[in-house]
Amino acid sequence: MDKIGKYKFIAEPFHCDFSGHLCLGHLGNHLLNAADFHATGRGFGMKHLLGIQRAWVLSRLAIEMEEIPQQLEHFNVETWIEGAMRYFTQRNFAITSDEGKVYGYGRSVWAMIDTETRQMTDIFAIDNGAINDFIVTDKPCPIEKGDRVKMGNDAELVRTLDIYYHDIDINGHVNSVKYIEHVIDLWDLPWHKEHPIKRFEIAYVAEAHQGDRLHFYREQTDPLTYCVRIAKTTHDTPTPTEVCRCKIHFR
Amino acid sequence: MDKIGKYKFIAEPFHCDFSGHLCLGHLGNHLLNAADFHATGRGFGMKHLLGIQRAWVLSRLAIEMEEIPQQLEHFNVETWIEGAMRYFTQRNFAITSDEGKVYGYGRSVWAMIDTETRQMTDIFAIDNGAINDFIVTDKPCPIEKGDRVKMGNDAELVRTLDIYYHDIDINGHVNSVKYIEHVIDLWDLPWHKEHPIKRFEIAYVAEAHQGDRLHFYREQTDPLTYCVRIAKTTHDTPTPTEVCRCKIHFR
Repeated sequence: MDKIGKYKFIAEPFHCDFSGHLCLGHLGNHLLNAADFHATGRGFGMKHLLGIQRAWVLSRLAIEMEEIPQQLEHFNVETWIEGAMRYFTQRNFAITSDEGKVYGYGRSVWAMIDTETRQMTDIFAIDNGAINDFIVTDKPCPIEKGDRVKMGNDAELVRTLDIYYHDIDINGHVNSVKYIEHVIDLWDLPWHKEHPIKRFEIAYVAEAHQGDRLHFYREQTDPLTYCVRIAKTTHDTPTPTEVCRCKIHFR
Repeated sequence: MDKIGKYKFIAEPFHCDFSGHLCLGHLGNHLLNAADFHATGRGFGMKHLLGIQRAWVLSRLAIEMEEIPQQLEHFNVETWIEGAMRYFTQRNFAITSDEGKVYGYGRSVWAMIDTETRQMTDIFAIDNGAINDFIVTDKPCPIEKGDRVKMGNDAELVRTLDIYYHDIDINGHVNSVKYIEHVIDLWDLPWHKEHPIKRFEIAYVAEAHQGDRLHFYREQTDPLTYCVRIAKTTHDTPTPTEVCRCKIHFR
């Protein structure tokens, strides 16, 4: 089994934005699907893990694009594991065309949890550290790793959203892709027309659930860079607590 | 070329709801993709039509499901044209498994417009009525056709939404699939837990754009059936005008 997986996708018309380019949230979804296809093919996919009381949890995702696939374009998502530690693995992505063009890259960090205790567990305990057989160190992923997103206390509350049916995934949590979409929706169409997204990174901190409200705090750190903190309030906890943090670079 | 097209899909994890079943909006998206794959393979797909100043416009869609594909399940969308008239075609769908199980069916009605004048045009004018070569009259689609959704004036305004970046498609209009999602989001998770959707139908009346606001009016017509009218207000027209109308049957 090749250490690098390569999966075919198409930029579906209803997944494309006003400009005819694939929305970044849908691209993120394709990366996460490719990650599971790759893991499943190598014995550590979600379905197998759930049978042994384990699950992958996405901790960070960064996507940086030189060019975004356009409506009905076919593209590939290549994915491989760059490194594994006891509690985290780094998984990289390259988004490419069949002709060898590179649209962009992605980087992600995953933890493994025990689905009963919800605590992090030792990744190397799965099949005697079998994941180490799939580490690729010689394939470049020439984008920066996501760093901790630093934000001051001056970020402005720019939107509050109720959580609806479509936000919630099978675990009862807000779907990782939905956060990306809600954050990108903070900018209006005229802004997106002038400023396509170059890089999007997100770090997931805690889970939000049906009935919670999400509050989006935004801070501009340079003319084309913004940080967004998402916090939740719950019925019992009216003080906002952080659920994730994003950094977006526009062109 | 077979008159019936059959396309493979998978219920992607981030397209599934709290119960692990594919969300109906994503299923609708797959039906619309299958429609274009089928049309493209037979010489009347969107890409070809845009080159001759024509486009298909979805007028109605009805989906009725006995069972919904679950997370990571593979399924097929079969699609064929049941009938064509000068201004409208009827396209049907069957959602099936490789083992022959039928999950459900769909029915849709499409008009063809001139992309310059935005007026309806004669479908039979395309390649001398070539679409008539692909009509299938002997494949059953045993669900009711969508009828005009009758609503009184007592429907209650239950939600108002601003239109964001992700709502808008390449034509600058609110994406057909997004309406379905916004309507389904009118019911909360506890309702959806008790009452899975059996049938969803939508009739598109007019277009909404970035900057418009959408207003959702809901009316219960029997214990498990609701009608929803979506109207828009624009900067210049503060009186709501209808953009689409839905009918939802729950179990």
